[in-house]
Amino acid sequence: MKSTFERLQTCLSRLPGVGRRSAERMAVHLVADNGKLLRELRTVLDEAVDTLQCCSRCGSITSADANPCRLCTSPNRDDAVLCVVEDPNDILLIERSAAFGGRYHAMHGKLSPMKGAGAAQLRTDALLKRVREEGVKEVILALSTDVEGDATASYLSDLLTRENVTVSRLAFGLPAGSGIVYSDPVTLAKAIGGRQPVG
Amino acid sequence: MKSTFERLQTCLSRLPGVGRRSAERMAVHLVADNGKLLRELRTVLDEAVDTLQCCSRCGSITSADANPCRLCTSPNRDDAVLCVVEDPNDILLIERSAAFGGRYHAMHGKLSPMKGAGAAQLRTDALLKRVREEGVKEVILALSTDVEGDATASYLSDLLTRENVTVSRLAFGLPAGSGIVYSDPVTLAKAIGGRQPVG
Repeated sequence: MKSTFERLQTCLSRLPGVGRRSAERMAVHLVADNGKLLRELRTVLDEAVDTLQCCSRCGSITSADANPCRLCTSPNRDDAVLCVVEDPNDILLIERSAAFGGRYHAMHGKLSPMKGAGAAQLRTDALLKRVREEGVKEVILALSTDVEGDATASYLSDLLTRENVTVSRLAFGLPAGSGIVYSDPVTLAKAIGGRQPVG
Repeated sequence: MKSTFERLQTCLSRLPGVGRRSAERMAVHLVADNGKLLRELRTVLDEAVDTLQCCSRCGSITSADANPCRLCTSPNRDDAVLCVVEDPNDILLIERSAAFGGRYHAMHGKLSPMKGAGAAQLRTDALLKRVREEGVKEVILALSTDVEGDATASYLSDLLTRENVTVSRLAFGLPAGSGIVYSDPVTLAKAIGGRQPVG
């Protein structure tokens, strides 16, 4: 039987970006200072268990008293454009860019045979249902640019082209504030292929 | 009034090595998957609040039913050598090296005027009391090698030399499995200054 400390560490190591050693440091930090942070985190988790959930429509994070979430119910957003992301976190990032005014749909993952995530684990049926019922004209696939993201994009675009909607994908290219010298060959090839007319 | 999600994020961002953006990712990850990880973390924190605490003697992490901790009460360890560390986590790392068989004392911080951590915030009085009462002959200062660690080492060695104990500090030098080519000038200078006779 593992000790409480070990179980705390294991649980923390399941957070994104946290390895075994960071989890140990975190667990120690929580208990040090007379467990002040430990108690605070417990209190806020207690509250989070009761109030936070995923939006039943788009899958983003929302509170129990606003489900479907504000992004889904806002009358100021465009029903015709649906942005498909992997993770609820991506929605927060895109919202911060203030460059998108449509609706969102989080897949809660991407195709990843290595991690046992097949099409059945994704929110694909819900996506197709929304596309059919909500008057969607364009679906923007805002997926990551790795192999798994590419596979997911290709799988979804096959399904979506049968639904009479335009399917697009985010532009590849140089990141802002960077230069050719910091770029890898694949990005550079995509940036050249996708070059834009000027003026 | 901040939302539960914001407070969860703020609380997570106070963990070591976690910035605002990582905390947001963690908070999203906890709530996604129907809050499964959220519930698990809450359960283990509930248990941790009741059972985990800092050892009243050395300051390491221990369970409530073993305080003073096993490192302090073990009859197989040497009372005469006391290893002073900044953080309870350092004790776990030194134990893993299996190179030390004495007792420990965690200061729970280091001198850091910038962060408002003065001598009063450290467990200095407890250290001096232990040195006087526990038959300590040598104190090893196993502090970090940054400016704050140096300041703390110098402050503690001033206090400890009055107590009739030998004070030593961990050796500086090249890390194992590395080479001169990866070393910075300060480390290299210390490694040359502290060179060891061979054979």
